[in-house]
Amino acid sequence: MNVRQMIATHPHVQGGTADRLLRCIEACYACAQTCTSCADACLAEDMVEQLRQCIRLNLDCADICAAAGSIATRRTGANVAVIRAVVEACAAACEACGQECQKHADMHEHCRLCAEACAACAQACRDALTDLR
Amino acid sequence: MNVRQMIATHPHVQGGTADRLLRCIEACYACAQTCTSCADACLAEDMVEQLRQCIRLNLDCADICAAAGSIATRRTGANVAVIRAVVEACAAACEACGQECQKHADMHEHCRLCAEACAACAQACRDALTDLR
Amino acid sequence: MNVRQMIATHPHVQGGTADRLLRCIEACYACAQTCTSCADACLAEDMVEQLRQCIRLNLDCADICAAAGSIATRRTGANVAVIRAVVEACAAACEACGQECQKHADMHEHCRLCAEACAACAQACRDALTDLR
Amino acid sequence: MNVRQMIATHPHVQGGTADRLLRCIEACYACAQTCTSCADACLAEDMVEQLRQCIRLNLDCADICAAAGSIATRRTGANVAVIRAVVEACAAACEACGQECQKHADMHEHCRLCAEACAACAQACRDALTDLR
Repeated sequence: MNVRQMIATHPHVQGGTADRLLRCIEACYACAQTCTSCADACLAEDMVEQLRQCIRLNLDCADICAAAGSIATRRTGANVAVIRAVVEACAAACEACGQECQKHADMHEHCRLCAEACAACAQACRDALTDLR
Repeated sequence: MNVRQMIATHPHVQGGTADRLLRCIEACYACAQTCTSCADACLAEDMVEQLRQCIRLNLDCADICAAAGSIATRRTGANVAVIRAVVEACAAACEACGQECQKHADMHEHCRLCAEACAACAQACRDALTDLR
Repeated sequence: MNVRQMIATHPHVQGGTADRLLRCIEACYACAQTCTSCADACLAEDMVEQLRQCIRLNLDCADICAAAGSIATRRTGANVAVIRAVVEACAAACEACGQECQKHADMHEHCRLCAEACAACAQACRDALTDLR
Repeated sequence: MNVRQMIATHPHVQGGTADRLLRCIEACYACAQTCTSCADACLAEDMVEQLRQCIRLNLDCADICAAAGSIATRRTGANVAVIRAVVEACAAACEACGQECQKHADMHEHCRLCAEACAACAQACRDALTDLR
């Protein structure tokens, strides 16, 4: 993924790209993929009945991460209130999903990896929010 | 769209579906399509330079409406904090997009229709939030 | 959903909107919502182990229906080869998902409704393809 | 992005993950982000009127890349005909978008980078298709 190079070439962005927002965008796309993958792996587990809530939160998290990644990518014009609300919602979804995945981390390696990705994305969102004013 | 019938057949939903959430889901899908269409119509207008912010807000709004529609559709398990945050972000995006589209409503019929769809979706989101506790 | 009115206001569309493409767009958005809802209802069923393939196909179908609905909505410029390929992929996904849902239609009303939505969307895609040359 | 590690932990995947499919998934997510970024940068350019087709193809390409990335990520059950059709549609969209971006590559660095990402993703899709039977 080439987030930094792409955004650096935007006509409104004059070198000074916000590092924390760039890392947030990367984390959102990565977490969307990881949550989609974890939902699918949970669905294939023998104990799928016990992973329903995990699958549901994974799917929600993937949806909002994808939306947040796209919206945070756009630099034309201004939309700070919306980006803030979307990135906050993304952080909330990552925290909920990460906590649920963590419960299954000892049993399922995909849940362990997904809990890590969710925690990293939640932190990247919180960090980006400090720049978004 | 068959939102009500589908959700009524969910094993956890015993008849008592929240009407306001159902209308919110319908509004989100409709607004996602309308904003995608308005962005594309704006892009084809002679005066596209003056519609850049409108296109950008349309694309953001379409992204979060799509995510909110999917997330609000899910009834398995519980995810109230996340749904609330996503629906709030969707309302914010609809309000920002609707206000911008309204500025071009006299000139472009697609912006007038889109401003209406955004206002309706923002209201549907606000209404649904009163039930989401 | 207001597909027809929106597309009729596009500067490149001079009244003569292709009815079959409009119905395809509506069917894609409706089927995306229905498949998202069916996946979630299947996930909540006691017999979730027997619905894994149904959930997986529902999620795939929702993803491609959403993409096809957006792409088919755009009328600026020309992209016929891409629209054709995407609408064909959407028809294939709807057929696969509809056939799987049909197997569970006697047992689960959400699968019966989803099989109907998938069949309708597959047909709407096939019909639209006859105009897309 | 952690595609390989995640998919390696899926209960149905026993070590032998198809390398070409993994690279296709990574390329799809990367290209979705790049095309979203290029559409937004084109929208901000002074010469936006001459970039309409580029923006339109970028948006289409981002939509199908996102769908293809999700669908190719899922390994539960079987859905080969659908994956093939979606990955083929993705390759077609990447080729169309890459060719258009290439025309503006001398003028706009974001288009040059996006043309590269599209060509890489189209190739990754074609490579993955050789394994998908």
